[in-house]
Amino acid sequence: MKTLKAELVFTGTELLLGQIVNTNAQYLSKELAAIGIDVYYHVTVGDNLARLVSTIRQAQGRSDLVIVGGGLGPTEDDLSREALAEALGVPLEEDPEVMAVLRQFFERRGYPMPENNRKQALVPREGMILPNPIGTAPGLLLEHEGKTFVLLPGPPREFRLMVSEQLLPYLVKVNRGQDAVIRSRVLKIIGVGESMLEERVKDLLGSANPTLAPTAKPGEVHLRITAKAPGVPEADALIAELESKLRERLARNIYGVDQETLEGVVGGLLVKKGLTLGAAESCTGGLLAHRLTNIPGSSAYFKLGVVAYDNRWKVNILRVDEELLSRFGAVSPEVASAMATGIRLIAGTDLGVGITGIAGPGGATPEKPVGLVYLALDFQGKVKIRRELFMGQRVEVKERSAQSALTLLWRFLSGDLE
Amino acid sequence: MKTLKAELVFTGTELLLGQIVNTNAQYLSKELAAIGIDVYYHVTVGDNLARLVSTIRQAQGRSDLVIVGGGLGPTEDDLSREALAEALGVPLEEDPEVMAVLRQFFERRGYPMPENNRKQALVPREGMILPNPIGTAPGLLLEHEGKTFVLLPGPPREFRLMVSEQLLPYLVKVNRGQDAVIRSRVLKIIGVGESMLEERVKDLLGSANPTLAPTAKPGEVHLRITAKAPGVPEADALIAELESKLRERLARNIYGVDQETLEGVVGGLLVKKGLTLGAAESCTGGLLAHRLTNIPGSSAYFKLGVVAYDNRWKVNILRVDEELLSRFGAVSPEVASAMATGIRLIAGTDLGVGITGIAGPGGATPEKPVGLVYLALDFQGKVKIRRELFMGQRVEVKERSAQSALTLLWRFLSGDLE
Repeated sequence: MKTLKAELVFTGTELLLGQIVNTNAQYLSKELAAIGIDVYYHVTVGDNLARLVSTIRQAQGRSDLVIVGGGLGPTEDDLSREALAEALGVPLEEDPEVMAVLRQFFERRGYPMPENNRKQALVPREGMILPNPIGTAPGLLLEHEGKTFVLLPGPPREFRLMVSEQLLPYLVKVNRGQDAVIRSRVLKIIGVGESMLEERVKDLLGSANPTLAPTAKPGEVHLRITAKAPGVPEADALIAELESKLRERLARNIYGVDQETLEGVVGGLLVKKGLTLGAAESCTGGLLAHRLTNIPGSSAYFKLGVVAYDNRWKVNILRVDEELLSRFGAVSPEVASAMATGIRLIAGTDLGVGITGIAGPGGATPEKPVGLVYLALDFQGKVKIRRELFMGQRVEVKERSAQSALTLLWRFLSGDLE
Repeated sequence: MKTLKAELVFTGTELLLGQIVNTNAQYLSKELAAIGIDVYYHVTVGDNLARLVSTIRQAQGRSDLVIVGGGLGPTEDDLSREALAEALGVPLEEDPEVMAVLRQFFERRGYPMPENNRKQALVPREGMILPNPIGTAPGLLLEHEGKTFVLLPGPPREFRLMVSEQLLPYLVKVNRGQDAVIRSRVLKIIGVGESMLEERVKDLLGSANPTLAPTAKPGEVHLRITAKAPGVPEADALIAELESKLRERLARNIYGVDQETLEGVVGGLLVKKGLTLGAAESCTGGLLAHRLTNIPGSSAYFKLGVVAYDNRWKVNILRVDEELLSRFGAVSPEVASAMATGIRLIAGTDLGVGITGIAGPGGATPEKPVGLVYLALDFQGKVKIRRELFMGQRVEVKERSAQSALTLLWRFLSGDLE
């Protein structure tokens, strides 16, 4: 099966100084593989014109598709446009449309465009502009002597958006000669650790096509199924067969697939069931509310969040009985339960979640170590309580706790707790 | 000053498929910079002998120090030893000591050594072994025609251990001609865009030592000062000199340095001034409370957060006048101000922050587009209000809004709003 040879070039002294991790390389490589393009090289080079030019020339010699990430900013050490033009011997010309977009971008913010942003409007002759909806640096695409050259901005959010919304659709459309596709699907799994999971699917991990690869994420495990075949239907059939085997074994742990998030799936179930939710948080400090409200349309079901970081507010606002606090302490199943019920009642929602725990580094006692967290879910007066003991530092404990609260919600909404 | 030119080569199909992020590249680059070695290139290549050989030959031609990560395992696609030997034309020989260590390794685990682990005992003639205390793959080091070649195992735990305990001490000891250290310091800047900022420091961006490089981050810009000198004190003096020039021009925009975060700096100022804070959030959905509570000890100053996603709670809990909501709408300076005052009064804190806006994708009107956000800060009854219009998608609008609220707090706490 013939596939396109791609080479990814990244520019940025901060990469060579080790100040940032090159997550763009991983993201783009994965996306290219998914449409059947083989990546043969990643090359990272500093913000130096001569080295950038020779790197692009070498890539031109050995690859069909050359994608350069970074170096499109307005500053003097942003050299990717110039390097591509010099490497290929094509002139750069100022593009009036890009210039207009740039001016608008600054007008919208109410100040004039700085002179040095002008260079962001330079486009190699016969180059195609890839608009950047969230930044000033547009991407560029150039078909030159039978090979494709692409320049993308370095900031990961812009890079990812332009890859997914512009580069990939273009590459799929022009399909320059590859006759194999690589398709993959990720099953997202909660409530079982990576090694436990591997035990349960050991016999399937060996398979060569499709392949099965587990990856541990905070509070969940992702199982990636990857299949290579002459066409999309054949690849998808291979994936579907393995997926059904996995679902037989892991049905109660698979919350979603691919880009689905736990908060998105939980939100969808709340909408489907017409239920509303309030959240009373202590140790998670608003992270649960933040994750829930990352979902467009969440205002339909998420009504009220209270971050009661101080016991006084657990009493005054959440109406937690002071005696519970003094008898059992703020980090106790009793208080978690009272917080869940309190938020449900004051928010007038169907569901209330209460979270109380010790995120650390301070606040621990011999009986109540850092990482001890109680979670409660009140559904119309019926309360479920979970006790967790998480390892790790403050931020990890917050993340694991919010994940655990969403897991509790997911299990309840998918009928697992009934 | 002469510094060593280093090139880092990584082998592994999983890197080119985007299944893992190359954290070894970042870790090693940072460690090398710290001892005054310049990294000029990162090259990632698949588990393919021909490509690996030509990559090593190219590195030999243009760099003084070539470090290869990965490809030392026992399987057929582990080719780094063979590739190095072929690239340099030196024979591989089985090393009895390594063989003995390997046999021991398996004996301790109570099973015989698999045949294919034999290849892990192959060493290029005149090569030096770097023992691997936590894995079967030893590292290798070879001085050849005035250049240094190093092979290290790919698993990050083994890679890092061998870099820190063996490679770095070796490089420092032999000090192959470099007579400089590289030190750097990052100034963290808010309230001015990347290109605006560059206009203000243009004359300083040209400097060769120390160098000055801006990087755009969501809601802030980082200015990295990097100095090269014979010793640490000289390098730090160069940095201090440039930093003081920058502080003269940007004092009101530099909130911190290096690993400091805006929420951490704001928290420190609140503690120093003995002030407490409450937050009333709408469009940020708890993100401001989450960032504030990521800081250890934040319970000393952050008392209460309310995520009033529903107007009903803006009225019932935050005591926002219903008439304001109907007259000006939930997204208005009047309501932002009332939310700030409301949270301050019910939380009994010195400061109250109110945030209301349209995160999108829904909820926009012709007068009130997605990205329109009002922020208010109430300090003992005096209220400051900010209007913002952010580009981007829902999560980005949330992030920019929380950043803007922290910026407002920082300016107030550093006396800038008095």
